[in-house]
Amino acid sequence: VDLTLRDLAERVGGEIVGDGSVVLSGVSGIREARAGQLTFLANPKYERYLSSTAATAVIVSPSYRSVSSRAQLLVCENAYGAFAKAMALFAPPEPPVEPGVDPSAVVSPSARIGEGVAVGPHVTVGAGASVGEGTRIDAGTFLGPGVTVGRGCTIRPNVTLTAACTLGDRVIVHSGSVIGSDGFGFAREGCFHLKVPQIGTVVVEDDVEIGANVCVDRATVGATRIGRGTKIDNLVQIGHNVVIGEDAIIVAQVGISGSTRIGDGVVLAGQVGVAGHIEIGDGAVVGAQSGVTRPVPAGLKVSGYPAQNHAVSKRILACVQQLPALFRRVRRLEQALSRTDKEA
Amino acid sequence: VDLTLRDLAERVGGEIVGDGSVVLSGVSGIREARAGQLTFLANPKYERYLSSTAATAVIVSPSYRSVSSRAQLLVCENAYGAFAKAMALFAPPEPPVEPGVDPSAVVSPSARIGEGVAVGPHVTVGAGASVGEGTRIDAGTFLGPGVTVGRGCTIRPNVTLTAACTLGDRVIVHSGSVIGSDGFGFAREGCFHLKVPQIGTVVVEDDVEIGANVCVDRATVGATRIGRGTKIDNLVQIGHNVVIGEDAIIVAQVGISGSTRIGDGVVLAGQVGVAGHIEIGDGAVVGAQSGVTRPVPAGLKVSGYPAQNHAVSKRILACVQQLPALFRRVRRLEQALSRTDKEA
Amino acid sequence: VDLTLRDLAERVGGEIVGDGSVVLSGVSGIREARAGQLTFLANPKYERYLSSTAATAVIVSPSYRSVSSRAQLLVCENAYGAFAKAMALFAPPEPPVEPGVDPSAVVSPSARIGEGVAVGPHVTVGAGASVGEGTRIDAGTFLGPGVTVGRGCTIRPNVTLTAACTLGDRVIVHSGSVIGSDGFGFAREGCFHLKVPQIGTVVVEDDVEIGANVCVDRATVGATRIGRGTKIDNLVQIGHNVVIGEDAIIVAQVGISGSTRIGDGVVLAGQVGVAGHIEIGDGAVVGAQSGVTRPVPAGLKVSGYPAQNHAVSKRILACVQQLPALFRRVRRLEQALSRTDKEA
Repeated sequence: VDLTLRDLAERVGGEIVGDGSVVLSGVSGIREARAGQLTFLANPKYERYLSSTAATAVIVSPSYRSVSSRAQLLVCENAYGAFAKAMALFAPPEPPVEPGVDPSAVVSPSARIGEGVAVGPHVTVGAGASVGEGTRIDAGTFLGPGVTVGRGCTIRPNVTLTAACTLGDRVIVHSGSVIGSDGFGFAREGCFHLKVPQIGTVVVEDDVEIGANVCVDRATVGATRIGRGTKIDNLVQIGHNVVIGEDAIIVAQVGISGSTRIGDGVVLAGQVGVAGHIEIGDGAVVGAQSGVTRPVPAGLKVSGYPAQNHAVSKRILACVQQLPALFRRVRRLEQALSRTDKEA
Repeated sequence: VDLTLRDLAERVGGEIVGDGSVVLSGVSGIREARAGQLTFLANPKYERYLSSTAATAVIVSPSYRSVSSRAQLLVCENAYGAFAKAMALFAPPEPPVEPGVDPSAVVSPSARIGEGVAVGPHVTVGAGASVGEGTRIDAGTFLGPGVTVGRGCTIRPNVTLTAACTLGDRVIVHSGSVIGSDGFGFAREGCFHLKVPQIGTVVVEDDVEIGANVCVDRATVGATRIGRGTKIDNLVQIGHNVVIGEDAIIVAQVGISGSTRIGDGVVLAGQVGVAGHIEIGDGAVVGAQSGVTRPVPAGLKVSGYPAQNHAVSKRILACVQQLPALFRRVRRLEQALSRTDKEA
Repeated sequence: VDLTLRDLAERVGGEIVGDGSVVLSGVSGIREARAGQLTFLANPKYERYLSSTAATAVIVSPSYRSVSSRAQLLVCENAYGAFAKAMALFAPPEPPVEPGVDPSAVVSPSARIGEGVAVGPHVTVGAGASVGEGTRIDAGTFLGPGVTVGRGCTIRPNVTLTAACTLGDRVIVHSGSVIGSDGFGFAREGCFHLKVPQIGTVVVEDDVEIGANVCVDRATVGATRIGRGTKIDNLVQIGHNVVIGEDAIIVAQVGISGSTRIGDGVVLAGQVGVAGHIEIGDGAVVGAQSGVTRPVPAGLKVSGYPAQNHAVSKRILACVQQLPALFRRVRRLEQALSRTDKEA
C-alpha cells in the first residue's frame, strides 16, 4: 500500500513535523531504509543514524522533536507502538492460508473443526479434539485427543499439543513447541526413580504467544497455567504446576521450575533460572542470567545469583570488579601495620 | 475408581491415623483438593495447608503423624513415593492407543514391527529398523534406517531418532527430542572449519526417560550412552561421546559437553553446564546454574562457577554479599592507620 | 575399505614413523580401538592411552613423534584435521537416500525441485519454494511458501523453514530446528503488549551447519543473517536481526539477543548469553556461560559476568576464591589496630 505521512498520522496518531504530503510505500530499519520508506527511532543507540537515514519519514518519541533530519518526523508518545501499527498497515500480508483440511491430514471423526479453520498437510487431530473458528493449524502439528484450541489461533508447523492442553482464543504457538509433556516428577525408591504419573493439564489463556521450541509441562495434578496476554520467547522451559499471570514477558532460554508462581506483568530476561515452589510478585523484573532462589516481592527489580535487589546486586558487582585493588590495599595495610609493630 | 483409605493403605503401605473407611475417588494438590480426594504433604513449604485442606485424606511422612487436620492421615516413610503409587491407581487412564500401523505411516518393508505395537499417523520407519513388542510410536515421529527400539517404549509425537540410535526397553522419549544428531566436531583448516564425520551411535538403556526438545548427539566414533534408569528433563543438551551412568537425574536446560562421563546416581540441577572430557563421580550432586570445569569426586556436592565443594561455595557467596561492608571496613582501617601515622 | 598406512599418508598427508605397510580397516577412539584400526591423539588428556592403545596406527601431532607406542605413528601438523579426513575415507557411508519425492510428501505444484533432490515422507513444500539440485529434505520437514534452499544441502527430519528463509549451498540443518520463527517484538500499550509484525527474513549463507532444536528468528524488518561457513551447535537461540559473520563457532545453548552483530571467526562457548544491539568484533572468543553486556573488541578473549578481558576475569575469580581468607585478614587487622589504639 501507499500512504501519505498525513494518512499514516490519522491512523496511528502523532504529530507531523515537516511535510505531511510525502508518500510512503513500506517500512525498514533506520540504517537500511531507502527513499519512500518509513522507519522509527526508539533506541537511543541508533540516534546517530537519524541525521543520515535515507528514509522519507521517521516515527520518533517527543524527545527527538527538534532534531535535524532530512526526513519528515512523526512525533508519537509511544514511538515503537506507533511503528508496530504502521508495520501492520504496510506489512506484506502472509501468503493466504485457505480454510479447509488438507487431504493428507488425519483428523478423528469425533473432532470438532470450526468454520474457516485451515488444517495443513500431515496434521493429526485426535479423538474429541476441538478447534475454534478461524484457527490455523499448520503442517505436521499434532493435537492429542481431547485438546481444545480456541478461535483465531495460529499453531505453526511441527507443534505438539498433547491430550492435556486447553488453549484460549487468538493464541499463537511457534514451531517445535511442546505443550503438555509430562512434568519431571519422580519419587525415590532406594536408588531407583519411580515415575509419578502426570495427570494434570495445561491451560493457555487468550492472546498468549509462545515461541519456538518451548516446553510447557502438564501439571502432576491440577493445571499448569499461562495467563492472558503473556508472551513467551524461544527455548523456554516451564515446569509442571507453574502458574504465570497476565501480560508477563518471558525471554528466551528462561527456565521456571515446578509449582512456581509468576505474577502479572512480570519480566524475566534471557536465560534466567527460577527455583521451584516460590512466588515472583506482580510487576517484578528479573535481570538476564539471574538465578532466582527466593520469593521476589511485587514490583522489585532483581538480578544476580542469588537474585536480589538490583541496586544491591550492582553495588556488589562493582565491588567484585575492584577486588584485585582491595587485595593490594589489604596487603599494604598489613605491611604498614607490621612496620608500626616493629617500630613500637 | 473408588477406594477406601483402608484399601489404599493395603496397596501402597502406610499406617492410617483416623477413619480408614472414608471413600476416595481421586487425587489433587493440597491446596486444590476437594472432599473425596486424596492429597499428600512432602514439601514443608506446604505444611500450613494441612490444617485447612478440604481433602478427605492426606499421605504424610512420619513427622506429621500428630498434626491436627480434619483429613484422615496415611503415614508413610516415603510419602511422595506412596502418593506416586496412589496416583497410578486413581489416574484417568490415557486414551487407549490401539495397536496397529496408521495407514498414513510410511514403514519400510524391511522394518521389523513387534506384536502389539502402535504406529501413529505420519510416522516414518526406515529400512531395517526394529520396534519391540508393545511399543508405541506416536504421530510424526521419525525412526531412521536401522534404528532399534526395545519393548514397551513410548515415543511421543514429533520425535527424531536418527540411524545411529539403539533404545532399550520401557524407554520414554517426549516430543521434539532428537536422538542421534551429529556431534559438534570440526577440525580447523586455516580459518575454515572442516566437518569431522560423526559415525558413532547413541545407546539409550532400559527405563530411561528423556524429556521434550532434548538433544543427544551421536558419538564421533564409538557410542554416546545413557545408562539404565536415568531421567532427563526438557531442553537438555548431551554432546557426542558423553557417557551417563545409571539412575542419574539431569534437570532441564543442562548442557554436557563432549566426551564427559557422568557417574551413577549423579544429580545435575537446572541450567548446569559441564565442560568436555571430564568425569563426575557416582552420586555427585551439582547445584543449579553451576559451571563444572574440573572433575568432581564421587559423592561430593558442588556448586558455583567454577563448581567446587558446595560448603566452600556457600561461604564464598556469603563473603561476596558482605563485600560492600568489607570495602567500608578497609577504608576505615586505612583512615585509622593514616591517623596513627600522622600521630606517630 | 582397507588401506595401508602408506596409502593413508598419501591421501591425508603426514610422515610415517614405523611400518607403513600395516593395513587399516576402520577408525576408533584411542581407548576403544582394536587391532586393524586407526585412531588419533590431539587432546593431551588422552596422552597416557598412547602407550597402551590396541590401535594399529595413531595420527599424532609432531610433539608426540618420539613417544614409545606399539602402534605405528602418522605425524601430522594438524592431527585432528588429518583424522577428520581419514574418517571420511573409512566412515561407513550413510544409507543411501534415493533421489525422488516420496509419495506421501505434499509438494506445491508451483515449487521448483532441482535434479537429484530427495524429498522424504511427510514433507511439505509450499507454493513457490525452490530446492536446489542434489539437496536432501528428510521426513516431516516443512518448507514454507517461497523458501529457497540451495544445492547440496541436507535438511534433516522434522525441521521447520518458514516462508522467510533463504538457504545457500551445502547448508546442513539438523532435526527440530526452526528457521524463520517470528522475532520477539512487542510494543507496550499500557499493560498490554502489542505484537510488532515480523516481516523480515532469514538468510543462511553457504556451508553453514545448524544443530538440532536451534531457533533462528526472522528479522522485524530486513534480514537475520548467518555468514558463510559458520557452525552452530544444538539448542541455540538467535534473535531477530542478528547478523553473524563467516566461520564463527556458536556452541550449544548460546542465546544471542536481537540486532546484535557477531564478527567473522568469533567463538561463543556453551551457554553464553549476549545482550541485544551490541557488536562482538572479528575473532573474539567468549568463555562458557559468560554474559556479554557490552561490545567486545576484535580479537579479545572475554569471560565472566559481565564479560570482560579474560585475564582480568581470571584474576577477579581468583580473588573471589580467596575472599574467606581476606575476611580473616581484615578481621586480624582490625583486632591489631584496636590493640594498637588501646596501647596508645
